[in-house]
Amino acid sequence: MLSSIECMAVVVAALYGILAATRKSLDVVGIFVISFSVAFGGGTVRDLFLDRHPLFWITNDHYLMIVLAIAIAGSLMPRLVARAEPYLAVPDAIGMALFTVTGAGFALQAGTSPFIAMFLGAVTGTFGGVIADVLCNEIPSVFRSSPLYATCSFLGGGAYVAVRLFGGEVWQAVAIGVGVVVLLRMLALRWDIRLPIATTGHADAPPDRSA
Amino acid sequence: MLSSIECMAVVVAALYGILAATRKSLDVVGIFVISFSVAFGGGTVRDLFLDRHPLFWITNDHYLMIVLAIAIAGSLMPRLVARAEPYLAVPDAIGMALFTVTGAGFALQAGTSPFIAMFLGAVTGTFGGVIADVLCNEIPSVFRSSPLYATCSFLGGGAYVAVRLFGGEVWQAVAIGVGVVVLLRMLALRWDIRLPIATTGHADAPPDRSA
Amino acid sequence: MLSSIECMAVVVAALYGILAATRKSLDVVGIFVISFSVAFGGGTVRDLFLDRHPLFWITNDHYLMIVLAIAIAGSLMPRLVARAEPYLAVPDAIGMALFTVTGAGFALQAGTSPFIAMFLGAVTGTFGGVIADVLCNEIPSVFRSSPLYATCSFLGGGAYVAVRLFGGEVWQAVAIGVGVVVLLRMLALRWDIRLPIATTGHADAPPDRSA
Repeated sequence: MLSSIECMAVVVAALYGILAATRKSLDVVGIFVISFSVAFGGGTVRDLFLDRHPLFWITNDHYLMIVLAIAIAGSLMPRLVARAEPYLAVPDAIGMALFTVTGAGFALQAGTSPFIAMFLGAVTGTFGGVIADVLCNEIPSVFRSSPLYATCSFLGGGAYVAVRLFGGEVWQAVAIGVGVVVLLRMLALRWDIRLPIATTGHADAPPDRSA
Repeated sequence: MLSSIECMAVVVAALYGILAATRKSLDVVGIFVISFSVAFGGGTVRDLFLDRHPLFWITNDHYLMIVLAIAIAGSLMPRLVARAEPYLAVPDAIGMALFTVTGAGFALQAGTSPFIAMFLGAVTGTFGGVIADVLCNEIPSVFRSSPLYATCSFLGGGAYVAVRLFGGEVWQAVAIGVGVVVLLRMLALRWDIRLPIATTGHADAPPDRSA
Repeated sequence: MLSSIECMAVVVAALYGILAATRKSLDVVGIFVISFSVAFGGGTVRDLFLDRHPLFWITNDHYLMIVLAIAIAGSLMPRLVARAEPYLAVPDAIGMALFTVTGAGFALQAGTSPFIAMFLGAVTGTFGGVIADVLCNEIPSVFRSSPLYATCSFLGGGAYVAVRLFGGEVWQAVAIGVGVVVLLRMLALRWDIRLPIATTGHADAPPDRSA
């Protein structure tokens, strides 16, 4: 059950990678690396931060093969992937939620504080997309005005951590954490809830740290 | 004493992060991640290179909370941060100097050669800004023509390493290293000292490695 | 013998770094970091993924000094480096091949599966250039339509892994792996063999994950 949700999360992440890569007219190498980044980037950064080895995708090499197969198929049928996009929001929210609670869980296991566990949950849930956006030469979309995404992940990780701290079982924490992430994300999409953006009006000039 | 300088260094780095992020019209998620990158990016890269765990900000989670609080406050009052910018040059130089000597010190402790210690001192002092610029989709400002910055860090790290190699105490090396960084940086700002840029005249075409 | 090939690989990588950096009008700090990234980025990412420490360039600090010397020389004579570019394709292919087989070899040594070893061989061979392109604010050239590059690395790594699995000696695997990479790369350059690009026609719009 958990393992099939995990597999779905990887597949959906890979599909988002294909969407991002085809919009930049990348070849299959680019599509594969971008899909890999969306799917495994967040978990890899978390594992490097926590010094957890071997990395998830090194031990479970079938996930890398699945992403490669999806990338090759996607490079042959990009329009099919593009047509699937409207149906990806719900599975993406579930996948992001799952990544979030596993990230927060591994952090607690490694002995971090609750706040760091929330932070690493959100890193696991969202940083793959950040890396993919950087590789595509875009400012990461989670940093820009858009319906709540990283915020859902952070708060859902907080729910997971809270349940664990108050003595709940892992499965209870997972259920509640995933539920909070998915619910918040669905509300944010439905009502277009965004964080305010901050601007000083000097768009595009880098801060003058060096002058 | 050291701990309050360290705290000041983190706060100033976070403020630079807010400046960079608000110029790109990011929301509070973006402001937080950019501020986090400026403040902890250099030290995190150094620790990953040296395999030092747990990471500084994982053990001292109050720093992450401070950065989050600053990011939220900064997203509400971006113009206030922008007005503070002219006063940030000196504290930034001191913070960068402190990051540099701690980086060089940890490297020597880990048994690296003096040259590697200088290099990792400069990585610690400046790489946070590099990561933040990359996340903001800019060529890192320390790579471009501007008053000496990474150079001050590299040479100050060299001063720290030299004092240690010639038998000086840690506090002597810290004092001299920080002094060299801050002095060079102030001179570079005062007299606009820059490294020459190199160009072949073919601006904007990537190197033709693949053709 | 191996060590002089390795040295040549580092030098050629550093020269490509200078070419990329001078096209962006970077100063010597930028040239050095870009050259460093091309030369050591792939191996560093591999070592972080495999948790191999100390890193190659930390133990062998003469390589970092060589790259610094080349970066300084290149920043003084950028046109000379630009004129050398047409002669770099063959040594670059050899260097990339050497990085590939060492990467695949270290991965097998660490106990990864054959497929992961091929992947980490290609990461070692090509990811330095990816990081350099990202730092230069470009979409990595290996992700775009161009004569096969990462593909040669991946398949050559596969040849290395296959020889090892079928009981061949290390030197046989190295010879065959390097031969496959260089041969494929030369054919790709000679006949302009590329992977197809995939596009949905919506150029430049990031995927609408957040809306």
